[in-house]
Amino acid sequence: MNEAEFIAALRTLPLHPGAEGLHDDTATLAIGGETLILTHDAIAEGVHYRPGTDPFDIAWKLVAVNLSDLAAKGATPLGVLIGAVLVEGAERFVEGLRAILTEYAVPLLGGDTISVSPATFGCTAIGRAGAAVPRRDGGRAGDALWVTGTIGAAMLGFEAGDGAAYLRPRPRLAEGRALAPHVHAMMDVSDGLLLDASRLAEASGCTAEIARAALPVAPGADPLRAATWGDDYELLFAAPADFAPPVAATRIGTLTDERAVPLLLDGAAPDFPLGYQHR
Amino acid sequence: MNEAEFIAALRTLPLHPGAEGLHDDTATLAIGGETLILTHDAIAEGVHYRPGTDPFDIAWKLVAVNLSDLAAKGATPLGVLIGAVLVEGAERFVEGLRAILTEYAVPLLGGDTISVSPATFGCTAIGRAGAAVPRRDGGRAGDALWVTGTIGAAMLGFEAGDGAAYLRPRPRLAEGRALAPHVHAMMDVSDGLLLDASRLAEASGCTAEIARAALPVAPGADPLRAATWGDDYELLFAAPADFAPPVAATRIGTLTDERAVPLLLDGAAPDFPLGYQHR
Repeated sequence: MNEAEFIAALRTLPLHPGAEGLHDDTATLAIGGETLILTHDAIAEGVHYRPGTDPFDIAWKLVAVNLSDLAAKGATPLGVLIGAVLVEGAERFVEGLRAILTEYAVPLLGGDTISVSPATFGCTAIGRAGAAVPRRDGGRAGDALWVTGTIGAAMLGFEAGDGAAYLRPRPRLAEGRALAPHVHAMMDVSDGLLLDASRLAEASGCTAEIARAALPVAPGADPLRAATWGDDYELLFAAPADFAPPVAATRIGTLTDERAVPLLLDGAAPDFPLGYQHR
Repeated sequence: MNEAEFIAALRTLPLHPGAEGLHDDTATLAIGGETLILTHDAIAEGVHYRPGTDPFDIAWKLVAVNLSDLAAKGATPLGVLIGAVLVEGAERFVEGLRAILTEYAVPLLGGDTISVSPATFGCTAIGRAGAAVPRRDGGRAGDALWVTGTIGAAMLGFEAGDGAAYLRPRPRLAEGRALAPHVHAMMDVSDGLLLDASRLAEASGCTAEIARAALPVAPGADPLRAATWGDDYELLFAAPADFAPPVAATRIGTLTDERAVPLLLDGAAPDFPLGYQHR
């Protein structure tokens, strides 16, 4: 059973209506007139970070990837629960938590601590959404496709071995809140811009037509490698053609009526992997 | 840094008011006039279950231990998020999830899937509380101390190698809801009845005076071993002396004004470990 088959099997379980058929990164829970956004991501040694990584960075990344999922919904974080592992240098883990929780004004709600090696950490983030909660399947033919910030900095940091951009991504919470009321579809870019754009397009029943020259690439990064590498945690969004984003963002293409493939780069279907595919 | 030091360090972080200073198993989140209960527990191969355990049982236990924390708050589950690992026999994991989610009418909200070995699974459970949310620190001198069901069945199952009681604990959700409006303090019994009773008493500023002969022990189990073994997931509660529980429960003792130690068994301080102490 591979991951796709496993997720298909999970879809046969009793699902909450807010689980959206497990087609999104987050769940919505309507309660008391409010809409909560819930997300859970785990990161494991040897899979999401290298053995020997400073526990400060593990803590930052663990929380950041979950806050990034809230950002894509335009949600304001209410708190996080941490599934922590008591690792060597746990003091640094606490300091990393302190840094990101303070930076984004997110309180710790609780969690659990275990001792296990190699370590797998979990985080559940809870946010409060506004009136509009963007999904990845709301894009329409004719929409412009945009991405915040630049892509490739995480790749460059990883390859240079300093890792700040790779290990300490900055979730686009303010940008997500500013964009949510206006966009048709939005998601964070975790597995590669081209792959995530193809997913947004496919979910929306469209094709993403992207111009390679338009990609906002970090200085020094190869555009195609940057666009297929992932871990930048920028926001990708589809909005009406005449929408002017209130945040720093670059228009990278257009959603069109569905073609044979979900993504065209300079008019052709790429013959290389679009990003990081989970096995 | 050991677990106690780690948790002490976590308490210096920005905490949500509902985190209760990380002194409880759950957090409360007041939103839109409702009170949500949130809990996160992880279980790891080699720590919480033996290598080779049927993934059906891993799934059941993963969800059950979290629902048990909701039960102690008298909460009704709204859903769970699962941090899953793609293990050998993942079909059985899905079937175990189906069994417990169906049994307790809990929908799946979402989660994450990773591939890592040895496996560490996470679960976040969310519930809706009633007007009364019992804490572990609300016990008062003069309260009677009670426990639901029997203790020791998990130990006997573990030792016999069949493991049904050990691996498929039954969270006392209905009992928790029935008791919550009436008790002064409540918690689930996960680490050993005597240890958990001493924690409830200590948090409440009392001493738990327990009579060994009163312990409701599963047939065939040694009372002292059963009372220090854990994993039964019964509910321990303190209630006014004249309270008659509406559920199957046994009175095991009394809370008294604080003495030198948090727990007395037949009038003496035990000279053996009270339960499973995390290192």
